[in-house]
Amino acid sequence: MEYTFSRALSDMKPSAIREIFKSLTDPEIIAFAAGNPAPESFPASDFAELAAEIFAEEPTKALQYGITEGYPALRAQCADRLRDRFNSGRDFDDTIIVSGGQQGLELCCKALCSEGDAVICENPSFIGALNAFRSIGCRTIGVPLTDRGIDLEKLEATFKNEPKAKILYVIPTFQNPAGSTTDLETRRGMYALAKKYGIIILEDNPYGELRFAGEELPTLKSLDEDGIVVYCGSFSKVLSAGMRIGFVCAPKPIISKMVVAKQVEDVHTNQLSQMLCSRFIAKRDLDAHIASVRAIYRGKCRLMLGELDKVLAGKVKFTRPEGGLFIWCTLPEGVMLDDFVKAAMKRKVAVVPGTAFNCDPSAPSDSFRITYSTPSEEQIVRGIALLGEALDSLR
Amino acid sequence: MEYTFSRALSDMKPSAIREIFKSLTDPEIIAFAAGNPAPESFPASDFAELAAEIFAEEPTKALQYGITEGYPALRAQCADRLRDRFNSGRDFDDTIIVSGGQQGLELCCKALCSEGDAVICENPSFIGALNAFRSIGCRTIGVPLTDRGIDLEKLEATFKNEPKAKILYVIPTFQNPAGSTTDLETRRGMYALAKKYGIIILEDNPYGELRFAGEELPTLKSLDEDGIVVYCGSFSKVLSAGMRIGFVCAPKPIISKMVVAKQVEDVHTNQLSQMLCSRFIAKRDLDAHIASVRAIYRGKCRLMLGELDKVLAGKVKFTRPEGGLFIWCTLPEGVMLDDFVKAAMKRKVAVVPGTAFNCDPSAPSDSFRITYSTPSEEQIVRGIALLGEALDSLR
Repeated sequence: MEYTFSRALSDMKPSAIREIFKSLTDPEIIAFAAGNPAPESFPASDFAELAAEIFAEEPTKALQYGITEGYPALRAQCADRLRDRFNSGRDFDDTIIVSGGQQGLELCCKALCSEGDAVICENPSFIGALNAFRSIGCRTIGVPLTDRGIDLEKLEATFKNEPKAKILYVIPTFQNPAGSTTDLETRRGMYALAKKYGIIILEDNPYGELRFAGEELPTLKSLDEDGIVVYCGSFSKVLSAGMRIGFVCAPKPIISKMVVAKQVEDVHTNQLSQMLCSRFIAKRDLDAHIASVRAIYRGKCRLMLGELDKVLAGKVKFTRPEGGLFIWCTLPEGVMLDDFVKAAMKRKVAVVPGTAFNCDPSAPSDSFRITYSTPSEEQIVRGIALLGEALDSLR
Repeated sequence: MEYTFSRALSDMKPSAIREIFKSLTDPEIIAFAAGNPAPESFPASDFAELAAEIFAEEPTKALQYGITEGYPALRAQCADRLRDRFNSGRDFDDTIIVSGGQQGLELCCKALCSEGDAVICENPSFIGALNAFRSIGCRTIGVPLTDRGIDLEKLEATFKNEPKAKILYVIPTFQNPAGSTTDLETRRGMYALAKKYGIIILEDNPYGELRFAGEELPTLKSLDEDGIVVYCGSFSKVLSAGMRIGFVCAPKPIISKMVVAKQVEDVHTNQLSQMLCSRFIAKRDLDAHIASVRAIYRGKCRLMLGELDKVLAGKVKFTRPEGGLFIWCTLPEGVMLDDFVKAAMKRKVAVVPGTAFNCDPSAPSDSFRITYSTPSEEQIVRGIALLGEALDSLR
């Protein structure tokens, strides 16, 4: 039988990164590609103890249906943390639990956008978000990302040219894939432009807790006096990615609509994992745990940057992240990205080609993304050396 | 600020049932409304043991990202069970894990339908599915449900009149809300009509394992020689609803597209709960457990039917389910549904008005749904007596 699919999905393919991730069953491959958190960052023994407590004390609550908005204690804990730690969330806001940050992005777009609307994005940007917007029938319009954040002049020109723009999607802190952080002036400029043109800002902050160098910067949500920012957070990089727990803080009318959309997607987020997160926050020291996670990434990032300095400096341009998981590398002129990715794969090093992050999927790229999160220290050293060999083989 | 929402969601409200469920924090209310499974049916102590094993033996797998298609062992177990127990699934089919049956329904519609398309449904039907289809911008077209299943003549007339019909959505076994089961001839008739008009059948079977009387009937999927049936199953009524684990068996091209849609919704289903289900199937006796769940519902249903016979026979018409969770009751002429629901609520008995299940949300109803799953035996007896009082107060 010939099947016909929806207009939005008919041309969509699985995310290149998820496909690369699936191919990583070969244990010899050095995984600089996937954005998985470091396994040593998961508090597994704490979760084992807390799960035993939950099954002993309140098993029915863990196994029965919950409410769409989320486990009440966890909702309150997330709202409190946003307020105390990030100065984010006002009286007109509400907080819900979602099945990972990804669901927060998708629900926000589903609530606000119809087929044919436009989402304005940093270019390059997070492929999972771009695909979520596309799956709702939205066009993804890229505005170049500079060292300081999105290019404000081009952003305003885009707002002017796109009457159907509904959302500005940004990752201001430790951007994926670029690893860069938007400075305060650009944050204020983005906010002012979004306000002027009546656009909702979708602030994606999955890495915000992972700063290991430099100065903390205010979230866009903390600047939100007008109720125009939807803030999306996640426990994936802090406690566990497999648990699929994220949270959204946004003006109440937007949250209400996202709850309707979530109800028809998965009814509610996994109860047991919501309760595990909630108990971890209540009974363990989340800040101390996060400090230990930061220390892991500080060490691994420093090691990778050191190896890049030794092996690729002067040949490949790369960012120096102050947090998060990613380094963004730009090839020298004359080296084709495809050739380089293949040469790396031949040496069993997986990187993500920059084309995967383009808002216009047919646009070319001369960059690639690598991560220090999952590989071991030994793999980081060997992997960067192999990337050097791969590059030399092409020059 | 004035917010504008997507065309599909702008008029949608949270499901009446989920809202009723939220209001059930008053412990004095007898909950005949929500479709929650009986808490005594959850194998909590097994899960406690299995969770301890998982955290001891493979914590990283439980806490790290998984693949969108689902935990491989559980996928295989679901495919095996569908084949061995329900004779369902052929070489052209594939099976994926979803975050509860609800997600399977939503993803199927998202993969196949665009805004303006029509989904043909039994009338009345499951409100969660109807809202999922609406959230994608689809129209829900109802075809009357008879004692034998959907009205085949009207179904064919609807197929002829609706060139944009893409999906026929049915719950052939222990229908929600009607509690009735489609007979074999009507199953074959539906299949033949769907094939003739090029419509995909979405077979929702969350209650299929819960038969406690009568003869087993073949699933529509087991008749599917042509690759036109998407089968949606769930562990919610068998192991745990809060875990949000379901599965879909469908032709490979449809599954591929649903995987793309799932990737942008929640990346993958909660890993720990997938592993708990998988271990339960591998290390416990699922069939024995299901037999014990059936015994719970057999007893509770018999009790409720007995009380209905005593209190409401000759006044209210009600179905006699052979499985599942629901009894569908029709009021005598002259009694207004709204008045009855309010009179019941005044006596602290919550029922769901039939209007909540209408494909046309503005259509009237003279019926209501009750469940025997969550209330205790004492509550069943008292609740039916109170429904009798409520009815008498209106005559």
